[in-house]
Amino acid sequence: MAQLLPSALVEAIDQLGRLPGVGARTAERYAYYLLKADSSTSDKLANALTKLHSGVKNCPVTFALIDADEDVSSLYSDPDRNKKLVAVVEEPLDIIALERTGQYNGTYHVLGGAISPIDGVGPEQLHIPELLKRLVDDEVEEVIIATNASVEGESTALFLQRHILDEGIEVKMTRLARGIPVGVDLEYADQITLTHALEGRRAL
Amino acid sequence: MAQLLPSALVEAIDQLGRLPGVGARTAERYAYYLLKADSSTSDKLANALTKLHSGVKNCPVTFALIDADEDVSSLYSDPDRNKKLVAVVEEPLDIIALERTGQYNGTYHVLGGAISPIDGVGPEQLHIPELLKRLVDDEVEEVIIATNASVEGESTALFLQRHILDEGIEVKMTRLARGIPVGVDLEYADQITLTHALEGRRAL
Repeated sequence: MAQLLPSALVEAIDQLGRLPGVGARTAERYAYYLLKADSSTSDKLANALTKLHSGVKNCPVTFALIDADEDVSSLYSDPDRNKKLVAVVEEPLDIIALERTGQYNGTYHVLGGAISPIDGVGPEQLHIPELLKRLVDDEVEEVIIATNASVEGESTALFLQRHILDEGIEVKMTRLARGIPVGVDLEYADQITLTHALEGRRAL
Repeated sequence: MAQLLPSALVEAIDQLGRLPGVGARTAERYAYYLLKADSSTSDKLANALTKLHSGVKNCPVTFALIDADEDVSSLYSDPDRNKKLVAVVEEPLDIIALERTGQYNGTYHVLGGAISPIDGVGPEQLHIPELLKRLVDDEVEEVIIATNASVEGESTALFLQRHILDEGIEVKMTRLARGIPVGVDLEYADQITLTHALEGRRAL
């Protein structure tokens, strides 16, 4: 079968198909949409992607994503933020979720993943030494271990807890509460969540 | 709330969010994936998108998508294809679907959409005059009206049929068979499909 589509379109479909969760049909739809739209749409997207890597870097202290021309994350350098309170998260985007609550005034530390032997991620690939340094340098009083509720997130939390104890660093360690999410009926809550909710019950 | 993400990342999320069916969360996932991947991944995608519009044009005869440096679609110019048989489709990608069957040896004509008053698409926006010219110039013997089975596709098929008759062009007009798709049980077939399947039943 001869090539049925122009090579420029085939190439665009091929490259769009590398995005996570995008199959051949979706990539075709994206490429065809861009082709039908004004060329400025694909040009703007191309331009944004070209500047993505050069415009973004990791904060050397918190490992949050920052502008390439910034020195340190503004969530750390801001004098209004409490440096003695550190929330440890897996990925930079987790910061956004916590910030959206508007209820947190501490700083962050991005591990850069979670311990996952199956994916070949061990503790040595995470930003743990830098965290320990911060705990000492900033005389941190509380570390909120805000890794995900997955197996990997829980293992990482446990590892961190033991590691900080082993290092003899005195700091209060907490974990985000597990319980029934807002808007979910009791009958639909899974067993593990319900167990956590019972264990973590609060006096009225 | 201060800007939490680097502006280059915000811009990439914003532009990726313009793809069809991509919401904020998906755009974040795409952008973050590209950021974590080697910069060559986003560069290649950007490069493909930059060349998309300039590398693709419509065939002036069939309106299929062709390389910018081609004159006419190879599915038309190929001497092995039967020019007296024309399949009329809505969009260029429909050609791929028909070619994948490996059972069709005629040529194609892309209308560029379907009649849809609600979207402001009338017959004058479709490549109908060019089709009529082909029917005469190539002495076409059969037109397969292969528009979609949607309301718009059916209206367009009906419009085309009447229009070709009104113009006094003598050509056999056919429509793709409607029926039960392979692998679908009778009990799950919808009423309209089943009606079509009954009407179009074939002798064994």
